[in-house]
Amino acid sequence: MARALLRSGLVSETPRVDEERLFSQLMELAEVREPEQPGWTRRTFSEPYRRSRQLVRELMEEAGLGVQVDVAGNLLGRLPGAQAGLPQIAIGSHTDTVAGGGRFDGMAGVLGAIELVRVLRAAGQGLRHPLLVVDFLGEEPNRFGLSCLGSRAVSGALEPHLGLRDGAGETLGEALSAFGARPRELGSALWEPDRLLGYLELHIEQGRRLEEAGVPLGVVTAICGVERAEVRLTGRADHAGTTPMGRRRDALAGAAELVLGLERLAAEAPGGVPGVGTVGRLEVLPGASNVVPGWSRLWAELRSPEPSWLERAAAGLEAEARRVGAERELEVELEWISREAPVRCHEGLRRLLRDAISELGQSQLELESWAGHDAALVARLCPAAMLFVPSRGGRSHCPEEWTEPAQVALGVEALLAAVLALDRAGEV
Amino acid sequence: MARALLRSGLVSETPRVDEERLFSQLMELAEVREPEQPGWTRRTFSEPYRRSRQLVRELMEEAGLGVQVDVAGNLLGRLPGAQAGLPQIAIGSHTDTVAGGGRFDGMAGVLGAIELVRVLRAAGQGLRHPLLVVDFLGEEPNRFGLSCLGSRAVSGALEPHLGLRDGAGETLGEALSAFGARPRELGSALWEPDRLLGYLELHIEQGRRLEEAGVPLGVVTAICGVERAEVRLTGRADHAGTTPMGRRRDALAGAAELVLGLERLAAEAPGGVPGVGTVGRLEVLPGASNVVPGWSRLWAELRSPEPSWLERAAAGLEAEARRVGAERELEVELEWISREAPVRCHEGLRRLLRDAISELGQSQLELESWAGHDAALVARLCPAAMLFVPSRGGRSHCPEEWTEPAQVALGVEALLAAVLALDRAGEV
Repeated sequence: MARALLRSGLVSETPRVDEERLFSQLMELAEVREPEQPGWTRRTFSEPYRRSRQLVRELMEEAGLGVQVDVAGNLLGRLPGAQAGLPQIAIGSHTDTVAGGGRFDGMAGVLGAIELVRVLRAAGQGLRHPLLVVDFLGEEPNRFGLSCLGSRAVSGALEPHLGLRDGAGETLGEALSAFGARPRELGSALWEPDRLLGYLELHIEQGRRLEEAGVPLGVVTAICGVERAEVRLTGRADHAGTTPMGRRRDALAGAAELVLGLERLAAEAPGGVPGVGTVGRLEVLPGASNVVPGWSRLWAELRSPEPSWLERAAAGLEAEARRVGAERELEVELEWISREAPVRCHEGLRRLLRDAISELGQSQLELESWAGHDAALVARLCPAAMLFVPSRGGRSHCPEEWTEPAQVALGVEALLAAVLALDRAGEV
Repeated sequence: MARALLRSGLVSETPRVDEERLFSQLMELAEVREPEQPGWTRRTFSEPYRRSRQLVRELMEEAGLGVQVDVAGNLLGRLPGAQAGLPQIAIGSHTDTVAGGGRFDGMAGVLGAIELVRVLRAAGQGLRHPLLVVDFLGEEPNRFGLSCLGSRAVSGALEPHLGLRDGAGETLGEALSAFGARPRELGSALWEPDRLLGYLELHIEQGRRLEEAGVPLGVVTAICGVERAEVRLTGRADHAGTTPMGRRRDALAGAAELVLGLERLAAEAPGGVPGVGTVGRLEVLPGASNVVPGWSRLWAELRSPEPSWLERAAAGLEAEARRVGAERELEVELEWISREAPVRCHEGLRRLLRDAISELGQSQLELESWAGHDAALVARLCPAAMLFVPSRGGRSHCPEEWTEPAQVALGVEALLAAVLALDRAGEV
């Protein structure tokens, strides 16, 4: 990296990403977790999440960033630009996890962005544009069934969801308030598009394409669309002994058909267009071994980088829900909780990332992102693109999630090269 | 009733089952429940269950019974017999409920037995034999996955299960101790077979055969066998976007196949032998909409009055579990938690019940019980039989569970007539 940046004339000294420093901070952050949960769990609104953001704030301040928390609960670190009046360059990701999650998903992008600032400052290298390092609030789905809370808020898209309720009846707005955010001020977009030059997000791939290709860096072409439906099935709770099979209205058996139906739908890829479908969560009531389930609820998720696939699969799921309801005399309610269309990454920023990687002398791959990301929400406001580093075995959202220290560091070096190029270009 | 008993010469006055008194006590007991749960929920070991047993104890004492709690937590009310040295006649049922349960399952038999004692005493009619009114501890399945705790204990069959653990790691033995029972003393049978003349249990049918036949009283031929298995499926938790369908080891999809597989198995009735199969409870981890489930657990239940059906269905479920495990690369563990064989009711007591109903001038039906009952456990010790009253719409284990006041009262009258006949006969 040092050599490449020197060759490119972008830095005058030989500052380096400190691989060990960055990695030890990632491990330190991972330890701030819910001890009773498996893996490295730090869910949005949890007490460990609150503590972890204090740690991230301290790291930002130590790196020389001016820190603020916005009304959506996003943690923002600002580095002023040398030239007045220029729009900001934003970089970052998130630091919450799924239950039983890992140590890299999101965290690599936030702590990597802070490391980038440290390298810049160590090099005595200021930017012309202001730099904004963001730790977006709650990117993973939470108990309200909504993901990307903070990145949704920056374009004013969170406010319509504030009335969502969790299982205990609390609203998302109430949870935000309890966490110290100010949901009443979320009516309008927090960020002004013309004050933003672009957003770049470093993230782990969470798949195995980079690893299988033996390539250390990936430039994302598109972020898959994600559609989530909550399906509630109401049958009739009955005694599991005295109710003959033919007279049952079993809400779990109906849900089981939907789980397998969605799996079949997702396995089809007409015209070679791929997609995936998952039921990750299922609840059954009353939930006793001697009672025919009278009620169940499941969350179905569809993903594809292609709108046509999502449209077909969503219609297929709805048809399957109607069929199961009719055949089993169940009342089936299907509600789309969120429907995020696929997002193409910005062409200009992608070119800039490709050139930066080439300058570093590294190989690269262009690939889709099968995970949703804050970048997809930010793309509504301004040019946005993403850079991937490999995930061992493609594993993610699990305790085994792993990226080598050198791979994370190389990602930060590529991000830094791209930020410097963007700062120099002043447009994309 | 009064007329019938007079005609039979069994009572000299005209005491009657007080339908209103009995019914208002049933409704009073139903109100002692878990307020945050749907229906009339009073689960074993819960605080409402503890309070409800104080109420039952008071009703027993008011009826003139000498009350004790045995080391298993069974509530026992004793009425001495007129003749020394004779074995006891036992009657009763249970007062715990399933989650979201009703107001009659079990309670009709316990409060009905207490009403029977009041009627006997009001008539100045003593029995030759001692009468034992039993409120058995915890008949419904609980968080340890075991049913019929108290009736299991009377034959010494509870002790091997004391190490069962609930989801939080507590053992059944610890829960019993906390409830005031003395599990260390459960090693031997609590009741001596030669001190028991017979056990009669009044219960709601929980099915709709009596209602459909328009018959008020049923004599049970056999109590179905109940076999319960816990099945644990371990796959791999993975990111629901980045893990292609063909590379998943989805523990929920595997569980869904077992739910539907058991339903198919149960719908078959080779040679006309019937049975039912149910998955009433299912858990999924990590349980997030964007994570492929890595682990699931379900409870499968099989019931039939015919041993051959149970044997075939159990083997079928095991084969299905092996197939799903192999095809989906899941580790599947199937453990039989309880295997209760079908129990034939005692021929002599059945004849006595049939005769008593005929004497009352009522119509009757002989039928199997598709629910498990304390009587099936007591039958290991002594002659046991059951009397059913109708359930509206066959509904049970649900808030809508209903039996008319006059139907419950008629059941108690038939039970009384049978007890008087048994007392007179002195043998079956």
